[in-house]
Amino acid sequence: MTRRRAALIGLLGLAGPVVIATPAFAQSAEAVDTQTYLDNVFVLLSAVLVIFMQAGFALVEAGLTRAKSVANIMMKNMMDFCAGVLAFFAVGFAFAFGEGNDFIGYKGFFLGDGAFTYGTLSLPVFFVFQVAFAATAATIVSGAMAERTKFKAYFVYSIVISAVIYPIVVHWQWGGGWLYQLSTPFHDFAGSTLVHMTGGVASLMGAMIIGPRIGKYDAEGRPRAILGHNIPFAVLGTFVLLVGWYGFNPGSELAADGAIGGIALNTTLAAAAGAVTAMLTIWAKTKKPDVSMTANGMLAGLVGITAGCAAVSTIGSVIIGAVAGVLVVFSVFFFERIKIDDPVGAISVHGVCGAFGTICVGLFATADAEGFWKQGLFYGGGVDQLVSQIIGVVSVAVFVAVTAGALFLAIKATIGLRVDAAEELEGLDVVEHGAPGYSTEPSLEAAMA
Amino acid sequence: MTRRRAALIGLLGLAGPVVIATPAFAQSAEAVDTQTYLDNVFVLLSAVLVIFMQAGFALVEAGLTRAKSVANIMMKNMMDFCAGVLAFFAVGFAFAFGEGNDFIGYKGFFLGDGAFTYGTLSLPVFFVFQVAFAATAATIVSGAMAERTKFKAYFVYSIVISAVIYPIVVHWQWGGGWLYQLSTPFHDFAGSTLVHMTGGVASLMGAMIIGPRIGKYDAEGRPRAILGHNIPFAVLGTFVLLVGWYGFNPGSELAADGAIGGIALNTTLAAAAGAVTAMLTIWAKTKKPDVSMTANGMLAGLVGITAGCAAVSTIGSVIIGAVAGVLVVFSVFFFERIKIDDPVGAISVHGVCGAFGTICVGLFATADAEGFWKQGLFYGGGVDQLVSQIIGVVSVAVFVAVTAGALFLAIKATIGLRVDAAEELEGLDVVEHGAPGYSTEPSLEAAMA
Amino acid sequence: MTRRRAALIGLLGLAGPVVIATPAFAQSAEAVDTQTYLDNVFVLLSAVLVIFMQAGFALVEAGLTRAKSVANIMMKNMMDFCAGVLAFFAVGFAFAFGEGNDFIGYKGFFLGDGAFTYGTLSLPVFFVFQVAFAATAATIVSGAMAERTKFKAYFVYSIVISAVIYPIVVHWQWGGGWLYQLSTPFHDFAGSTLVHMTGGVASLMGAMIIGPRIGKYDAEGRPRAILGHNIPFAVLGTFVLLVGWYGFNPGSELAADGAIGGIALNTTLAAAAGAVTAMLTIWAKTKKPDVSMTANGMLAGLVGITAGCAAVSTIGSVIIGAVAGVLVVFSVFFFERIKIDDPVGAISVHGVCGAFGTICVGLFATADAEGFWKQGLFYGGGVDQLVSQIIGVVSVAVFVAVTAGALFLAIKATIGLRVDAAEELEGLDVVEHGAPGYSTEPSLEAAMA
Repeated sequence: MTRRRAALIGLLGLAGPVVIATPAFAQSAEAVDTQTYLDNVFVLLSAVLVIFMQAGFALVEAGLTRAKSVANIMMKNMMDFCAGVLAFFAVGFAFAFGEGNDFIGYKGFFLGDGAFTYGTLSLPVFFVFQVAFAATAATIVSGAMAERTKFKAYFVYSIVISAVIYPIVVHWQWGGGWLYQLSTPFHDFAGSTLVHMTGGVASLMGAMIIGPRIGKYDAEGRPRAILGHNIPFAVLGTFVLLVGWYGFNPGSELAADGAIGGIALNTTLAAAAGAVTAMLTIWAKTKKPDVSMTANGMLAGLVGITAGCAAVSTIGSVIIGAVAGVLVVFSVFFFERIKIDDPVGAISVHGVCGAFGTICVGLFATADAEGFWKQGLFYGGGVDQLVSQIIGVVSVAVFVAVTAGALFLAIKATIGLRVDAAEELEGLDVVEHGAPGYSTEPSLEAAMA
Repeated sequence: MTRRRAALIGLLGLAGPVVIATPAFAQSAEAVDTQTYLDNVFVLLSAVLVIFMQAGFALVEAGLTRAKSVANIMMKNMMDFCAGVLAFFAVGFAFAFGEGNDFIGYKGFFLGDGAFTYGTLSLPVFFVFQVAFAATAATIVSGAMAERTKFKAYFVYSIVISAVIYPIVVHWQWGGGWLYQLSTPFHDFAGSTLVHMTGGVASLMGAMIIGPRIGKYDAEGRPRAILGHNIPFAVLGTFVLLVGWYGFNPGSELAADGAIGGIALNTTLAAAAGAVTAMLTIWAKTKKPDVSMTANGMLAGLVGITAGCAAVSTIGSVIIGAVAGVLVVFSVFFFERIKIDDPVGAISVHGVCGAFGTICVGLFATADAEGFWKQGLFYGGGVDQLVSQIIGVVSVAVFVAVTAGALFLAIKATIGLRVDAAEELEGLDVVEHGAPGYSTEPSLEAAMA
Repeated sequence: MTRRRAALIGLLGLAGPVVIATPAFAQSAEAVDTQTYLDNVFVLLSAVLVIFMQAGFALVEAGLTRAKSVANIMMKNMMDFCAGVLAFFAVGFAFAFGEGNDFIGYKGFFLGDGAFTYGTLSLPVFFVFQVAFAATAATIVSGAMAERTKFKAYFVYSIVISAVIYPIVVHWQWGGGWLYQLSTPFHDFAGSTLVHMTGGVASLMGAMIIGPRIGKYDAEGRPRAILGHNIPFAVLGTFVLLVGWYGFNPGSELAADGAIGGIALNTTLAAAAGAVTAMLTIWAKTKKPDVSMTANGMLAGLVGITAGCAAVSTIGSVIIGAVAGVLVVFSVFFFERIKIDDPVGAISVHGVCGAFGTICVGLFATADAEGFWKQGLFYGGGVDQLVSQIIGVVSVAVFVAVTAGALFLAIKATIGLRVDAAEELEGLDVVEHGAPGYSTEPSLEAAMA
């Protein structure tokens, strides 16, 4: 029942925070219940912060794309969560956290017998926290395929990601599967790989298979900028994501113990470093400190630190965030150059920086369990850890690439993946949903006069 | 002092969660204080989430109406809260939770002697939580009467609802009044009836008395669509309301005990189900998955589950949410057809689905106290419970209809309820508040050149 | 280690809440750990709310200014936080909370040895809470200098405020410095002076030195209204700030004890009172209830109560908020008249009302420790307290005026403070950041046709 915790202990010998995190042993029986309630309150409120991230993803995607498909984008982000919740409740949670084999769970459908919970958490609290994560994985893909995907196709693939693809990779590690059982277990504390890179690799497959937006490349194949219609939305969304990440990372401790502060601190430092270095990089490259690239830099830092936030030092966090902020800029230009049109940079932010951050756990983790917020950089994992990190990243990337690729191709061959050109030029709001996202129609009163 | 809790115990014999929720008896004296502080922290943070809902209501209303009155709408939503807080502090809280008779409280004005608190909560924490609820009831009405109501009239009726009408219905149940004292007590855990239907019925009276917006019906009396000006605002507001509901429902447990996880889970499932079925319903009806109707479906699911979130099973929650999502679509069309112009669908979302969800407690409550998050559907209340639910809904609806109706008619006869036609055509922002909500004026610099 | 708490005890003899707030003494050893974890969870979640305020400040500033510089404004607000975090981590926290003398700390750089924490809080949690405050102080200045400041200049002064100026004034009081050591210690519970007035005075110096926006004054020197481009953003931002203030004020208790409810209650009442009186004041003055002035009134009430929220009665809170709401209106007109162009009213909201609220502690603090949420007004501090409050306000104001003034003059003389006139007329987005905040470009598709 405490496989994830056990994984954490096994990984880096984080004895300090773990011991103080097990109240059943450290405290008298009288105090256990209050600690249990506290754990549940903390993780539930963390889940609420993660759910709030849905609004952040919606705003970032809406802000960085054009006005004519803005309602479609908001709708997709509602459905990520809503259809995702029902699908994860029905089957996804069982695949991820149910009893099963090393590859997949197959008990606990509809939260029935065989569903797993963690430590002192009640099953409902654990589920609400995990379903918010599942919705995150699905929503990432929305951005990469924005402005040209059929809503019906989106509805289908979003459910499949939440219900099947994401749960399987989660089972490999957090569900106690084969990645966790490596002799040196894979370490991905809050999901740089399991959540973000999963979303990022699915984004890559989706963007490749659907192709670029009309007008993204000129006749000679040179990329052209398609500006986001609302930078305030994009930055507001970035702030909302930052806020939500304080649920995502500290909440992944799954207990209100002595580790959450250090996790929050590392998260803060990496976010800040990523934004600053992304800004400086784009400033050096284009002579202007671009706003949306800076926002993506903050997100890159956050994605990067998500795997190691409980295992690296403060200086390690700054380095991970800073490098992620540089990486995201070059990655965005790289994918644009190879003609993969990703309107929001999801592949770079979540895929590239997710993989990078996961591997960094093998480089920057410190064994000094009590002092992961201290300064200093310590190579604690050894080569074995680094190898495990690479195995995890590669295996998840391959699995998601194959399954998501097959999914998008199957959708393309059946209901169709992309709207037709005329619809794309008009924008998806009216065509797909029957009403524009912004209405500036001549007033009805004028029409009546 | 524990009347509400007692009501809950009495209602369905929910022995399981209740026993673990009374730390004073279950734990040694040493741990009581920490549990008390935890209860207060949890309810205070829940109150903050409910206060955040004010932003959500403002955004939904603003997004679903026209740009020319957007500043007026934001102003109304500030005043709901601000004037509402002062009025509820002065008298409303005393009417609701002060010592008194079975109909109304009459002690505890300005939180003085005779003010009630609950369980382990300090009076300030209980007040802050309750005042956020009072503001919610008032703000619902704002949407139904949008784009044509005098600000001065709004200011008056908003205060009366927060200070008098809402507190009285609250006293009937949460204040230990006559509804709570029914032989099988009425059960409305977090306020499907007391908060939402109160707002919804007041909305109905307001929208009827003020009449439709100019241009809403053509010369033959056929309804015309008046599109919302900003769907991203409406959906962002819906996400904010979803987030806030995790304070609204779990926080209504008024303690950090073992029940809050199940409440959050049920809330999540109903919201998701409501959005999905509303989308499918409007899709079937109009061939397009309409975005604002889907958002209203999520809200309908949330309103529906609010009464029973601590008493029904997960499957019951999905059913309640799903039916509410269908219901809201037909209800919106119904009110439009009978010429009641409700720009945001407040009557349908809060009134119809609030009544529906409350009655469902009589149909779907399960007596299996430990397992309200288990699958399975259990008719636990019996006919007596169903009768009590209907008594509650009908009595509150009649009381609010009569008092809110009298209020609107009195305002109409004195200071006036509606702006004149020229002002309505121009929009309320400049006329009522002196400045537009959006300024795109030719730049001052150009004017100077 | 408990200097701030000691200051609080020493100040007003607040024995009641303080005793119950020291679990290490009041409870058995068994319960201590859970109380410690609860304290840390509460302060960490409070920090998250304060971090969310960055989004609120960004939205208020963006909404109250013109569309042509909106991306610049969002960028500045990201950098406040991101550069501020790194600077405060490196040196600011040490200056504020490190071991040192009565004027400044000089140990604990990068959270190393000599860094201070408080009570039961872990150093990371205390740091995350404090860094959010530092970012707040810096972001206030952004609004006052909006629409005409070079981004590079902003980047520099924002870092200096977060890293040096703000930390020094914090050290004087919360770091145990000379203000705290006055025979009757200065009392500024959550920072009306240390945070808000610091930002407000720096705003005043910045706005004076940079001069008014082109077009703000006509040829005869009469002020002209430059309307905000998006009132919904401004009001949404105000709601976000309100929500964040529930972290700012109750979180400043730095423990999850019996005082947090009363602090939240006082915060609520002052916010409400400020909005209502500002609305009534501007309504009386201009015949229209102006929306942005009302929003500023809510913020004025919040700033005003920040110093005394743990020390005054509910009635005291209403009075402080109400007077701040009136004050802010007259102050805004005053600064406009003396040709200091402050686009968002930051000087008035944060500077004037911050000073006012701090001095009010000397007038309205009540010694009735158990009943600070009771009604009643009690002059508890005596003349000595009032004198200490004035000493604190004046000394901080002078220090900030001198240092921030020197900073802005130094920037002006080197890299330059203000964009040139052509750039200002065009707006900062394209000139400074290379892309507009809103893109309504003719579609690329059209261009290709």
